[in-house]
Amino acid sequence: MKLAVIPGDGIGVEVTAEAIRVLDALVPGVEKTEYDLGARRYLRNGETLTEADIESLKGHDAILLGAIGDPRSVPAGVLERGMLLPLRFALDHHVNLRPSRLYPGSGTPLRDPGEIDFVVVREGTEGLYTGNGGAIRVGTPHEIGTETSVNTRFGVERVVRDAFGRARSRRGKLTLVHKTNVLVNAGGLWQRTVDEVAPEFPEVAVDYCHIDAATIYMVTEPSRFDVIVTDNLFGDIITDLAAAVTGGIGTAASGNIDASGTNPSMFEPVHGSAPDIAGQGKADPTAAILSVALMLRHLGRVAEAERVEAAVEADLGSRGDRPVVTSEVGDRIVSAVSD
Amino acid sequence: MKLAVIPGDGIGVEVTAEAIRVLDALVPGVEKTEYDLGARRYLRNGETLTEADIESLKGHDAILLGAIGDPRSVPAGVLERGMLLPLRFALDHHVNLRPSRLYPGSGTPLRDPGEIDFVVVREGTEGLYTGNGGAIRVGTPHEIGTETSVNTRFGVERVVRDAFGRARSRRGKLTLVHKTNVLVNAGGLWQRTVDEVAPEFPEVAVDYCHIDAATIYMVTEPSRFDVIVTDNLFGDIITDLAAAVTGGIGTAASGNIDASGTNPSMFEPVHGSAPDIAGQGKADPTAAILSVALMLRHLGRVAEAERVEAAVEADLGSRGDRPVVTSEVGDRIVSAVSD
Ligand SMILES: CC(C)[C@H](C(=O)O)[C@@H](O)C(=O)O
Ligand SMILES: CC(C)[C@H](C(=O)O)[C@@H](O)C(=O)O
Repeated sequence: MKLAVIPGDGIGVEVTAEAIRVLDALVPGVEKTEYDLGARRYLRNGETLTEADIESLKGHDAILLGAIGDPRSVPAGVLERGMLLPLRFALDHHVNLRPSRLYPGSGTPLRDPGEIDFVVVREGTEGLYTGNGGAIRVGTPHEIGTETSVNTRFGVERVVRDAFGRARSRRGKLTLVHKTNVLVNAGGLWQRTVDEVAPEFPEVAVDYCHIDAATIYMVTEPSRFDVIVTDNLFGDIITDLAAAVTGGIGTAASGNIDASGTNPSMFEPVHGSAPDIAGQGKADPTAAILSVALMLRHLGRVAEAERVEAAVEADLGSRGDRPVVTSEVGDRIVSAVSD
Repeated sequence: MKLAVIPGDGIGVEVTAEAIRVLDALVPGVEKTEYDLGARRYLRNGETLTEADIESLKGHDAILLGAIGDPRSVPAGVLERGMLLPLRFALDHHVNLRPSRLYPGSGTPLRDPGEIDFVVVREGTEGLYTGNGGAIRVGTPHEIGTETSVNTRFGVERVVRDAFGRARSRRGKLTLVHKTNVLVNAGGLWQRTVDEVAPEFPEVAVDYCHIDAATIYMVTEPSRFDVIVTDNLFGDIITDLAAAVTGGIGTAASGNIDASGTNPSMFEPVHGSAPDIAGQGKADPTAAILSVALMLRHLGRVAEAERVEAAVEADLGSRGDRPVVTSEVGDRIVSAVSD
């Protein structure tokens, strides 16, 4: 197994180190290549992501990413639009997979959360993330800035199909989240695609929810969700909210998946590089460690993935009010999966 | 005072009746014209909103709307895109004002909500709501659907200025919510406009938050917000979430305001027509009644607005677990404001 590792910036470096320890404890002999992508390289030589990087990354079975960005020294958007998004597009990561589970002991802000266990399948290569748009008369009173959401049947159908498949092997419920009452062109395409794929999955019950209503359900009745399928921007929004209601982005993992298998998929915590707490050894590596579990599952190593998840669940349940120490969380998970 | 009343559909009719009773108790002699816009008229003669409706509505000082739509008989999008949105555009309702307050006794889903009292200034005439977009090869494997967010300096500046003004007369904090790291054309325009207007309001502290992060703060630290300014779609999403964390859309009021005063502004509950509970007398008219308060405030009748708000606050605080009876809520508020 050849793994590309992009620790990135800030706490990305710290949490990735623990994630790798967990991986090493479970799967000996993984061949790793480290990439210095992120703020560090950008500040050194102005590079974000080169053709050579992409070609080299393609030679791996999977990619593990920590977190990217340093808002103190790199302007907003530079690394997002220069590295993170180009990577998703270049490697055709159309299934942006974001599971949300409420682990016992995690600090949900909800009074009565119920059982939360759902997966968001966020489309990762279309919508408002395509960079389609422009601006004229910038800086004048007549400035106009546009952003165009691009949605193709090809692009929508492949994630819808992926989401149906996941729903079938879970609790059999799929919820499309969109804003079909306003965005009729994109929404019509999404809704019709779901309707047309549905008969192939008779075991799956289909539901629909506007994005605004979905945010309400997310805080009042999150247990109603099993698999959510949605576009790139709505997925971005709903998964951050989902992470918050399940106790914070400290435990939210994600996979950027090329479901065709042509390119390596990439696994990363949903959280950012958090420069404010970087270098202090207090970042929670749980999301990075759960990203390893997602990766193992994606690579067919289900037993190992389950061991990581069980270890994380036990660890979160026994933490109490003690503050997080990054390396100690790593120690505990490593020891649990090594038993 | 000439008031146009659009009770609409479902519970819209019921809650508007109570709102009108409250208004009558406070401001005798309001001249009212009722409009049958909504699902009822559409199902009768296929009309959504005519030029004559718009001209006639313009002859009023304000508009009170209940709720529109009947998902059982009118396809999604028909009334939204045929009536609600055209009304906002025709009357240039660029300031979509949505206050959020946690009233004592209201059932917030948050364990530890803190004090919640903020206002969202949602842009109402631009962004992804302009109907700019299209579709080709519909129904084929090559279908493409696009939606274009249109943002102008003129349109952004006027709501930004309005939001700064509101922040100055509140707690002095303005938060721009956008997704500037991805939507660079629209985001750049919004961010620069805020930066350029800010020096005119030195009393106001300015903050920025991505939409995804804003949904996290909304459930973990909603007290951080005072005035939020954002675009049409982000505003739609964040205000539904805000309504949920303050105890549900049963108490969320909104104003669709033409801040230039050229056209009558329109006031309405954020909730929909809820056909599932219509006709049973159990819809909460509080949001409609608070919409009357917003309207009175907008029309300069601050003392009357405050009486309504105080009455609502007292009523919510004393309800306990008793189920809502629409007319009884109206009775209690009418009697409180008549004292
Ligand atoms: C950093 C940003 C470009 C990214 C996104 O919007 O997709 C992030 O918020 C995420 O959810 O992975
Ligand atoms: C009904 C719909 C068109 C509308 C919107 O999206 O603006 C509603 O959700 C609202 O928030 O007023």
